[in-house]
Amino acid sequence: MPRKTPITYDHSLMWASRSSAGASDGERGALARSLEPVKTRLIEDWKSGRVGFFGIPELKDDLAAVRRTAADVARQFTDLIVVGIGGSDLGARALIRALGREGKGMRTHFIGANTDPEEIALLLDRIDLRKAAVNVISKSGDTIEPMSAFALLRDRLVRKVGRERHRRHVIATTDPKTGTLRQIADREGYRTLPVPRGIGGRFSALTTVGLFPAACASIDVAGLVAGAKEERDAFANTSAGASAPLLFAGLHHDAYLRRGQRISVLMPYADGLKEFGSWFRQLWAESLGKKRSRSGMVVNHGMTPVAALGATDQHSQLQLYNEGPVDKVVTFIEVDSFRKDFKVPNPYPDLEGVAYMAGHSFSEIIHAERAATAVALSRNGRPSGTIHIPKISPESVGGLMCFFMLATAAVAELLDIDAYDQPGVEDGKKAMYAMLGRKGYSL
Amino acid sequence: MPRKTPITYDHSLMWASRSSAGASDGERGALARSLEPVKTRLIEDWKSGRVGFFGIPELKDDLAAVRRTAADVARQFTDLIVVGIGGSDLGARALIRALGREGKGMRTHFIGANTDPEEIALLLDRIDLRKAAVNVISKSGDTIEPMSAFALLRDRLVRKVGRERHRRHVIATTDPKTGTLRQIADREGYRTLPVPRGIGGRFSALTTVGLFPAACASIDVAGLVAGAKEERDAFANTSAGASAPLLFAGLHHDAYLRRGQRISVLMPYADGLKEFGSWFRQLWAESLGKKRSRSGMVVNHGMTPVAALGATDQHSQLQLYNEGPVDKVVTFIEVDSFRKDFKVPNPYPDLEGVAYMAGHSFSEIIHAERAATAVALSRNGRPSGTIHIPKISPESVGGLMCFFMLATAAVAELLDIDAYDQPGVEDGKKAMYAMLGRKGYSL
Repeated sequence: MPRKTPITYDHSLMWASRSSAGASDGERGALARSLEPVKTRLIEDWKSGRVGFFGIPELKDDLAAVRRTAADVARQFTDLIVVGIGGSDLGARALIRALGREGKGMRTHFIGANTDPEEIALLLDRIDLRKAAVNVISKSGDTIEPMSAFALLRDRLVRKVGRERHRRHVIATTDPKTGTLRQIADREGYRTLPVPRGIGGRFSALTTVGLFPAACASIDVAGLVAGAKEERDAFANTSAGASAPLLFAGLHHDAYLRRGQRISVLMPYADGLKEFGSWFRQLWAESLGKKRSRSGMVVNHGMTPVAALGATDQHSQLQLYNEGPVDKVVTFIEVDSFRKDFKVPNPYPDLEGVAYMAGHSFSEIIHAERAATAVALSRNGRPSGTIHIPKISPESVGGLMCFFMLATAAVAELLDIDAYDQPGVEDGKKAMYAMLGRKGYSL
Repeated sequence: MPRKTPITYDHSLMWASRSSAGASDGERGALARSLEPVKTRLIEDWKSGRVGFFGIPELKDDLAAVRRTAADVARQFTDLIVVGIGGSDLGARALIRALGREGKGMRTHFIGANTDPEEIALLLDRIDLRKAAVNVISKSGDTIEPMSAFALLRDRLVRKVGRERHRRHVIATTDPKTGTLRQIADREGYRTLPVPRGIGGRFSALTTVGLFPAACASIDVAGLVAGAKEERDAFANTSAGASAPLLFAGLHHDAYLRRGQRISVLMPYADGLKEFGSWFRQLWAESLGKKRSRSGMVVNHGMTPVAALGATDQHSQLQLYNEGPVDKVVTFIEVDSFRKDFKVPNPYPDLEGVAYMAGHSFSEIIHAERAATAVALSRNGRPSGTIHIPKISPESVGGLMCFFMLATAAVAELLDIDAYDQPGVEDGKKAMYAMLGRKGYSL
């Protein structure tokens, strides 16, 4: 069945025949075969419900609740303040940067991903809280950055509109039954949206967590989920060796384990996907950076994600990528068709330094820049791959998110690590609790 | 002489006695001694004029021209569109993010660091060109991203205000004598600011290149330069082994060469320094990512810079930093005193999950988060250092920029590479010219 929103992965320059530090062409069959048991295990994780993100397209009640609540909130308020950190922040940011358009939907502001008081002051100066809704997002309600910001915002709201009225301004996205934020929401009578079971923060962009802010920004959230479903189903219906996310995973695993290429650069050639890189960065780092294998062996695995932006970073990072240590795999995202375009005018036809640009469209130029960068890397022996999407749309962005969730889960299988925990975040939290005098914690 | 704006470097957790993958404490004296000839060579580079950035504090005519021109432009226009890429973009962004304040000075917009037509369309929709000045920045005037964007902006301006009037809107920052943009400026009669001799793009933030947009945003540009001067003079007047930027360089070089720690993470705990990380990222990558040593040997040196943000990235990257491969050196920037602060209110004293935060100020919390992260890294054997600045101010940001320029130059000395060229950027450019049909280029 032809796909409505095909997401393809061109890995031709990932192989040693084209880029000398690439994967061995002779082992292409072996690499494909190594992906078959990975696919089998991922399908088991899906069907057994052990890994929740596979089931996102079936959470239809949540989607309906998101749309209903967003429509109601958008009628009452002009601004939405999203209060979250990590997975409760980066997904919505990526969606709104790619698909939100000024003048449509609510204006979105993000706070709670830091405890920088200067930033909070800037937000409070800028916003009229009477016209603002607050979406506080935390599964537990114990996380210090969003909960401290929320306590302050709530205090300001209560002062501005009164204790009673402030309840209408707040929407809490949290665990349906337990946790501190659930208790707060119940006590205050806030509207709530449920964080679905079994889906960790960094896999939650296409659940209530990311979809509610997106819907408030007038983004087609059903399209996002449909794109993810299409990508998931294509994965299920394609042989392991031909599956784009599995090949992406297999090639990165091979580069990491066999050739010490421990840095994964994601470089979309589109400003709209800049924050998508930040979302990917959490997914890849937290899922794959692990001290222990599933059997408890100390492995200290991890690939360091780097979020780059084409063509911009050609004038910042490309020198290093072309000439530095051969320790990176670069992946471009190419947007085949842009939603707007212009031709470069020709005001100075006699000046050769600029005349050569004239008459080309900006999209031609950005495509040529990506292709030229891939050629240069390849000539310097450095592997790169390119993910193509037809255009930036809800379906393609939802599909891309699903692509990277699948690829991340697959690399974790290949490394025999748990993609879904984050034990290494706890060490720092405990030390901080001790410093702030929280009961039961000491340095 | 006590410093007005002390910038200090706490490297206690960079040593193996505190973080097991750190530098050998026994070699501390040897490391300090290795920095003495580095200091001598840098001072020679300064005094001989071979390396221009040392002389920035003495470019007083340029500073006066920046202030005069900015005052004039700010009287006539409300918005400034900065058209530049790389060093002609990242410095001004960093300065304005750290020191610009809404409601003061001109609103700044950046374009020309990409050729994404969607982004250009968003800008054109948002801005009334009749009220906007355009600062096009390119030493040569041949760079495709800013020059294509400028051609389009110029075309729109001419259509909007006429050929004659549009001249008043444009300020070109370019070579004082040669190059395509110089020819254009002379032909059109644009006002110009000179790009000073011998200062490459990534070292130019505190010259006309970065200072003019900063001045338009009402930033104290004399304070920026004074901070850089203070840092430079402190470097000159301190023994090599006690110099903060030299120690930073020596410890990074040691980590890179002896222990394979090839990733340099810069993690300010302040939203205002987020774009500072992007500026650092270019400086570090382009200066130190080099195929050949100065004598022509193939070395493929380079440390990959990662721009992180505390506390935000504790919920994105810290899992990897604590548990992944021991291939990183993390540097925090701690802002000792914030320009605003709040206390966390206590609306739910009976809920232990949030009550422990109450009564602490946000600045206390962010300081505790940084300290706790350093402790956790150290317990996991991973080295980290902390640069302290008193507060975010023109003097401290200028000083920080000088700190990193000195440190970068010093690492290049230790690696025996040229910090000031970028031959690896040319490969991709030539391929792109060929694709776009520029005369004299083929694939």
